[in-house]
Amino acid sequence: MKAAVWHGRRDVRLEDVPLPSAPQPGWVQIKVHWCGICGSDLHEYVAGPVFIPVEEAHPLTGLKGQCILGHEFSGEIVALGDGVKGFAAGERVAADACQHCGDCWYCKQGLYNICENLAFTGLMNNGAFAEYVNIPANLLYKLPDGFPTEAGALIEPLAVGMHAVKKAGSLVGQTVVVVGAGTIGLCTIMCAKAAGAACVIAIEMSSARKEKALEVGADVVLDPNACDVVTQVKALTDGLGASVSFECIGHKATAKLALDVIRKAGTTVMVGIFEEPSEFNFLEIVSTEKQVIGSLAYNGEFADVIALINDGRLNVTPLITGRIALANILDRGFEELVNNKDQNVKIIVSPELQVAS
Amino acid sequence: MKAAVWHGRRDVRLEDVPLPSAPQPGWVQIKVHWCGICGSDLHEYVAGPVFIPVEEAHPLTGLKGQCILGHEFSGEIVALGDGVKGFAAGERVAADACQHCGDCWYCKQGLYNICENLAFTGLMNNGAFAEYVNIPANLLYKLPDGFPTEAGALIEPLAVGMHAVKKAGSLVGQTVVVVGAGTIGLCTIMCAKAAGAACVIAIEMSSARKEKALEVGADVVLDPNACDVVTQVKALTDGLGASVSFECIGHKATAKLALDVIRKAGTTVMVGIFEEPSEFNFLEIVSTEKQVIGSLAYNGEFADVIALINDGRLNVTPLITGRIALANILDRGFEELVNNKDQNVKIIVSPELQVAS
Repeated sequence: MKAAVWHGRRDVRLEDVPLPSAPQPGWVQIKVHWCGICGSDLHEYVAGPVFIPVEEAHPLTGLKGQCILGHEFSGEIVALGDGVKGFAAGERVAADACQHCGDCWYCKQGLYNICENLAFTGLMNNGAFAEYVNIPANLLYKLPDGFPTEAGALIEPLAVGMHAVKKAGSLVGQTVVVVGAGTIGLCTIMCAKAAGAACVIAIEMSSARKEKALEVGADVVLDPNACDVVTQVKALTDGLGASVSFECIGHKATAKLALDVIRKAGTTVMVGIFEEPSEFNFLEIVSTEKQVIGSLAYNGEFADVIALINDGRLNVTPLITGRIALANILDRGFEELVNNKDQNVKIIVSPELQVAS
Repeated sequence: MKAAVWHGRRDVRLEDVPLPSAPQPGWVQIKVHWCGICGSDLHEYVAGPVFIPVEEAHPLTGLKGQCILGHEFSGEIVALGDGVKGFAAGERVAADACQHCGDCWYCKQGLYNICENLAFTGLMNNGAFAEYVNIPANLLYKLPDGFPTEAGALIEPLAVGMHAVKKAGSLVGQTVVVVGAGTIGLCTIMCAKAAGAACVIAIEMSSARKEKALEVGADVVLDPNACDVVTQVKALTDGLGASVSFECIGHKATAKLALDVIRKAGTTVMVGIFEEPSEFNFLEIVSTEKQVIGSLAYNGEFADVIALINDGRLNVTPLITGRIALANILDRGFEELVNNKDQNVKIIVSPELQVAS
């Protein structure tokens, strides 16, 4: 089959690879319909290896050095391993990417997204930029009848936003700030609105993303190049600050900003993947009784997202800025995102589309 | 009356000052029995002004420039202002030091300890290193019959520890780390044990404080000069890390240490008053789903502490390392604490004791 295989930095190859073997007990084989390109895929392409194991084989999957990328996907079950219950061939599914050991303390507590041996699909086990992929059945969620096929590829990033939103506690009636309107920021805006936030303020500099933020439901967009963001948030909240903020960039400066825009006793959920340390005085937390919570991936939120896409409360259409063939993943996928990052949100890839020249 | 009045750095004077005026409506006048010297009093003495307003009058109290120190006290009601209900002259009380406006958003939410106009007793309004002090009646807690008089001066720092402990959620059966065994660290150790923690690990370098930590209930004391603390905490917790930690020092390096000793999805409560920023990569929170919560003073915990001192579950005796006359507050109080910090925990001061020469 055709697959996009990571071999090294700037070395992702569209190759003919063997079909995955028949699924082992508890696993299924899925024919991929759509798979979105994630920022982490791009990161592996441009600056990898980040998460792909290259020195030692992954303890859970044995993967080392080469990996079929892709984890934001949906498709159709084509084969079931022994012992798989509740699923049948032909059913459409999306798959949680947090492959986990089931044996560590965290897995036993149900915190499988922080499993000690986490093997994220498409980074630590072969993923879905391919015609077929094998996945543990306990990570599958069925797509309801009539669920738009391409929306299946947006469940995963929306689940990241939904997990962050649930970490914050109830948002109903609250004013919320989302720092950054990239894919995860936009998904977080959508989930915060779905959770009943009265007012969602997005903080973003790119004009294309500012428009997207409003399109997906932000009530206000503030540009740090055009105003003092903290002052403006306070002006919108009776001088207090927002109840909750979400840091969805991962920059050393925006961590502090996310804390500055909330009121005392407010909550900041950190979602961004930070590369550099921040200079931060923890007195800002002590003297204000603020709290900071980390949010990683998701833990069961696929079900919530599927329900809200299905009833129309989450509309994925504005998030999709490209639909391309797997054969075009390098030129119209990775390179397009590298060169036109601000103009794109989610490019989704299908092995079933005809190649475009 | 005699009082210890802060005039400036290294300039606290034992003076004859007028008695406080008759208490205003809603306030009472208290004859002071015992008042403890707090680290913040010492801080004003050595490095102040820190919290004492010197440039502008405090918005709630009008205090500026000079202040009778002292906020960890108990005493006896001697006069009541108009409208005070539920209290009578002669009753013994302790007083929450968080004088607040009652009008700001935080006060209306019951979060009076982070009031926008907080006027902490003994720093932003005259305090209890004096024979008499006036206090709002809504901050008073009655001491039960038989409650040891000198223990009344320990309620306040224990309430700080209790507030921090309650911020962490349930500790029952958990392994907990307390970073620093100064007064607040020791109080936090005691409250964590009272809250049902299975194992309390104290981190401390001073040998006198290490002994005190064990005396007040710590199960293990780790010295960063003698071992790798993170490795040892993991060894004591099946390789995971503690469920909860409390940072009770306020040093830029121990903020990160407090986060390093907890397991993924664990909680760090920050209690220390940090002077300098830390270098901190928020990825350590994102990738582990840890949470950080600030804890400031207390919010109703006087009642909890009085109940547990009264039934014997909190034993304040090991915390008291000196009992001195108000007339000796400079030589046997502040200077003793400056010169023999590690040997002391709490020195309590009484206007009723005879001066020692």
